[in-house]
Amino acid sequence: MGTATLLQPQDVVTLENPDAAGPFLIVCEHASNAFPAAFGSLGLTEAQQSAHIAWDPGALGLARGLAARLDAPLVAARVSRLIYDLNRPPHSLGAMPARSETHDIPGNAGLTAEDRLARTEAVYLPFHAALRALIAQRLALGHPPVIVTVHSFTPLWHGTPRAVEFGVIHDADPSLALATVAAARSTGLRTELNQPYSAADEVTHTLRLQASPFGLANVMLEIRNDLIASPAAQEAMADTLAPVLRAALHQTETDQAGTAA
Amino acid sequence: MGTATLLQPQDVVTLENPDAAGPFLIVCEHASNAFPAAFGSLGLTEAQQSAHIAWDPGALGLARGLAARLDAPLVAARVSRLIYDLNRPPHSLGAMPARSETHDIPGNAGLTAEDRLARTEAVYLPFHAALRALIAQRLALGHPPVIVTVHSFTPLWHGTPRAVEFGVIHDADPSLALATVAAARSTGLRTELNQPYSAADEVTHTLRLQASPFGLANVMLEIRNDLIASPAAQEAMADTLAPVLRAALHQTETDQAGTAA
Repeated sequence: MGTATLLQPQDVVTLENPDAAGPFLIVCEHASNAFPAAFGSLGLTEAQQSAHIAWDPGALGLARGLAARLDAPLVAARVSRLIYDLNRPPHSLGAMPARSETHDIPGNAGLTAEDRLARTEAVYLPFHAALRALIAQRLALGHPPVIVTVHSFTPLWHGTPRAVEFGVIHDADPSLALATVAAARSTGLRTELNQPYSAADEVTHTLRLQASPFGLANVMLEIRNDLIASPAAQEAMADTLAPVLRAALHQTETDQAGTAA
Repeated sequence: MGTATLLQPQDVVTLENPDAAGPFLIVCEHASNAFPAAFGSLGLTEAQQSAHIAWDPGALGLARGLAARLDAPLVAARVSRLIYDLNRPPHSLGAMPARSETHDIPGNAGLTAEDRLARTEAVYLPFHAALRALIAQRLALGHPPVIVTVHSFTPLWHGTPRAVEFGVIHDADPSLALATVAAARSTGLRTELNQPYSAADEVTHTLRLQASPFGLANVMLEIRNDLIASPAAQEAMADTLAPVLRAALHQTETDQAGTAA
């Protein structure tokens, strides 16, 4: 477990715009393809370390673009999902996968319980503690945040093209996801609810851990990564999606007011 | 917010038997009626500081007795629930109540947002981070814990006697609670499901925050405090309830195996 001490929280998680005043809080668990020396490159080639198995390409740029437009704080990972997938709980095999799509991950084969504990303590706990602290701060100050997690997915999965461009995923509370799908109609993006993944695929851990216990509105966004491959494309997508999120939140608030009346 | 720095995590939370090998993890959020100097006595008399409004009398002794008999770790609070009620989220008025039953809490009247934030950061975050770290450790090691929170309630509420002796409360997943009620039949205790409180009273925050996101079996126990008023009575109640919890867990595991088969 000595490796755990080689990483500090600031090596694992970055917090941008902490004092932003808008209602949203943006989270990007798969923002980085960094392989810090504490855990090494897991036996992967440089090409593998740059591929979508290591991170969600384009997601950080889009998340930053959304945070800027929505005046929102951003909590983003600074290590590869192959070291620890922050959208998975510590007992999930997917937290430190030995295989990802068609790639073996040599450094994740035959991990001991102690290895898993070291990564959990070095990566999972500080990331989610930083996110929790920000959420708790806003709750204490009377401004419950709306949690939006930002992901990207690969256009080809095991060789098959994916037609969906914008996936909107919910956990127990579907209200903001449904409103987001409705608001996205005007964008021209091919938008699908709970595609290319859904909660049944265990992809909603962050929502379940950080939003549901506080009754916070929440949604997970998945953008096909060929649409956000360049900084310019990420900015353009942020221009498209920021108004969608604003409109969706407004719709859920209007619906709630109607229910309460 | 300067007061937050006057409390260290070890002033807020105590962790006993961290390496215990049994399946349960015992939590006692209302274990203490301590009023640390950082926040003071909130204008309460010594009698009020000793009364059930400040803590759950007898709960810590019972929790320790259960932890010993079940070979379980225990996570217990070291500050009064009137400074921060650790079974409430930061935006709940009940987290720092200005009134409790028939008592005004002067030090909780007119709290500013910054006051609420200071207590959240000094008490809520470190307590739940310590509990989370222990849960994550067990998950990473392949031993998902069963979460049991231990509380006591007052025999008289606004002057009316309560007949229930043992309340068993659940949040979203009722399985362990139902099995606990069934297993308690042999004890002679007057046992009720979701009495004297239920999730609708917002008393299941710890279960919702710490157990549900990981799919952990969980239950909240409420014992009438006249039954656990002395150390001997707490030990006797632990003798009674430890086998109930063991039998209830065994029953849920048997039920699950039957469902899976």
